Amino acid sequence: MLEDKSQELTPISKLGEFGLIKHLTENFPIVQSSTKLSIGDDAAVIDAENQKVVVSTDMLAEGIHFNLGYVPLKHLGYKAVVVNLSDIAAMNATPTQILVSVAVSNRFPVEALEEIYSGIALACNRYKVDLVGGDTTSSNAGLVISVTAIGLADDAKLVKRSGAKPNDLLVVTGDLGGAYLGLQILEREHSVYLANPNMQPEMEGYDYILERQLKPEARTDIKKKLEELDVIPTSMIDISDGLASEVLHLSDQSKVGFNIYEEKIPMDETSISTADELNLNPAMAALNGGEDYELLFTVSPSDFDKIKNHPDFTIIGHATEAAQGNFLIARGSNQLIPLTAQGWDAFLNKD
Amino acid sequence: MLEDKSQELTPISKLGEFGLIKHLTENFPIVQSSTKLSIGDDAAVIDAENQKVVVSTDMLAEGIHFNLGYVPLKHLGYKAVVVNLSDIAAMNATPTQILVSVAVSNRFPVEALEEIYSGIALACNRYKVDLVGGDTTSSNAGLVISVTAIGLADDAKLVKRSGAKPNDLLVVTGDLGGAYLGLQILEREHSVYLANPNMQPEMEGYDYILERQLKPEARTDIKKKLEELDVIPTSMIDISDGLASEVLHLSDQSKVGFNIYEEKIPMDETSISTADELNLNPAMAALNGGEDYELLFTVSPSDFDKIKNHPDFTIIGHATEAAQGNFLIARGSNQLIPLTAQGWDAFLNKD
Repeated sequence: MLEDKSQELTPISKLGEFGLIKHLTENFPIVQSSTKLSIGDDAAVIDAENQKVVVSTDMLAEGIHFNLGYVPLKHLGYKAVVVNLSDIAAMNATPTQILVSVAVSNRFPVEALEEIYSGIALACNRYKVDLVGGDTTSSNAGLVISVTAIGLADDAKLVKRSGAKPNDLLVVTGDLGGAYLGLQILEREHSVYLANPNMQPEMEGYDYILERQLKPEARTDIKKKLEELDVIPTSMIDISDGLASEVLHLSDQSKVGFNIYEEKIPMDETSISTADELNLNPAMAALNGGEDYELLFTVSPSDFDKIKNHPDFTIIGHATEAAQGNFLIARGSNQLIPLTAQGWDAFLNKD
Repeated sequence: MLEDKSQELTPISKLGEFGLIKHLTENFPIVQSSTKLSIGDDAAVIDAENQKVVVSTDMLAEGIHFNLGYVPLKHLGYKAVVVNLSDIAAMNATPTQILVSVAVSNRFPVEALEEIYSGIALACNRYKVDLVGGDTTSSNAGLVISVTAIGLADDAKLVKRSGAKPNDLLVVTGDLGGAYLGLQILEREHSVYLANPNMQPEMEGYDYILERQLKPEARTDIKKKLEELDVIPTSMIDISDGLASEVLHLSDQSKVGFNIYEEKIPMDETSISTADELNLNPAMAALNGGEDYELLFTVSPSDFDKIKNHPDFTIIGHATEAAQGNFLIARGSNQLIPLTAQGWDAFLNKD
């Protein structure tokens, strides 16, 4: 990691707070017409252009959400942005601006912050969002990144967690479980490295799941795809804490139950083979693993034909009356297993 | 402090992440008509109601921005909100919503977070803003609070830092230096306490400046007062880092110079007497102390009559051509002292 290197690095105190912010943010272009005023004033100014404003915030803390032993700082900056854009996408809105605050201890040189901001810049460029504000401060402790994402959407197209009705189809984008399995490989190889720093990590063949963990993408493309299909989901959420946890959120807020089919849960081949290798149940990685940042949504049964053969979408179950509860229907057996949230919890899953 | 107490306190892990957020935020009412969807979905939804959206974020870190040895957690929650509302007020906008993220180590019980959130609730109630989102996470280290504030304003009334013209009058609200001097008293008494925990702190007579430090207020009242006077400032900023630093920001962004008169800088009697007691120059406390959260703005010379006798406003100087630079004109002597920013810097002023 950068902070372990040498005397040539620049201490943050050399630039000071204002100099640092200016230095880190000077190469961020403004690409959104809704951004009327950006970094450099007391606040940014956004023109909602007759749309609704959607806003979400997430905080990532060192040692809890990431381990700098194997997470490159650039990837960390990228991921901190993406997880917030995913929340905006889950409202069926288009992300337009972000604000980023970073607390770092003085053990980090300016070059480490430059790495984080290069990842933030990459995400801004990839998703066409403007960095319009933030704060950079010292911390007595580890690294903490807080991102607030802002998006815009027509009122009629906004999708909440609360609109699912019994018999609606439950649909997921992409594939699940990969991010969790990628983390298992990273942690395994990091343990090997700690035991013997001369050992080369064995990362070959795991590219897909490592990328799912280290460089996740937000499904901001789904809004347009749904528009092309003329489908407005009845409810939607992004998968940050595992499929089971998110299904239970939709259930809770929409006042419905869900049946989901284990055999329908989409998983990549690398995920399945890695789960086998690690003696894990692949479906459990999808249900409880989290961090896949795919979208989970419900659509009216009348939209079945529009959704069924689309390469981005997999129908994995359906909504039932609330009184029926939430179940996983096990592969082959038709056994109903009650769904419980064993997803990721920042206060429980500490290393 | 709460975290030092006993076994009766509730560990955060008992509630878990979702339970904790729900528990902490359940008593926050929605009072703004612009809040269309609040906590509980992937993002909040705000209706800008044909106004511009103003957004700002600030992060406070334990040991850098506050010392839990003498800052009560409830005050900390209150202040974390207020400093962000002050940024919105500095745009001549009305704050409407906030999002709050908190990272805490497991040494904090649920009751400590309840204290922080009771302060946040007090600020929300006082300023009529809605808490619409946030994140609560574990941290390996100290306490970090990140607040994002959102406000609304008519486009024509927004005030940036960049509009001052030569000969504009420089105006400040309230009085300055108190927050810094309050901090000096708190630090003095905390040192005494650390040396001898049986000593009673001597806080009597310092109430005004202690309140300025521990429970600052944002000047969200100024927007209405300016409207009543039919004055729109040509530039504005809030005083978070000391008068000198803020004058230099206006200078830099408006491309003007400023002359300010030491004898005009408004200070409370308690601030002056405390500065004397501590052998500090009172004007230096105002210029370099920071955290007063008053507003500093410029108005056209033609607005002089509207501003001059208003109890909330003090004219402390005027703008000049940029080439003339920025000066403090010393009391009595007419000596010109170049203004330099020695204000508060999170990367330099570490204890």
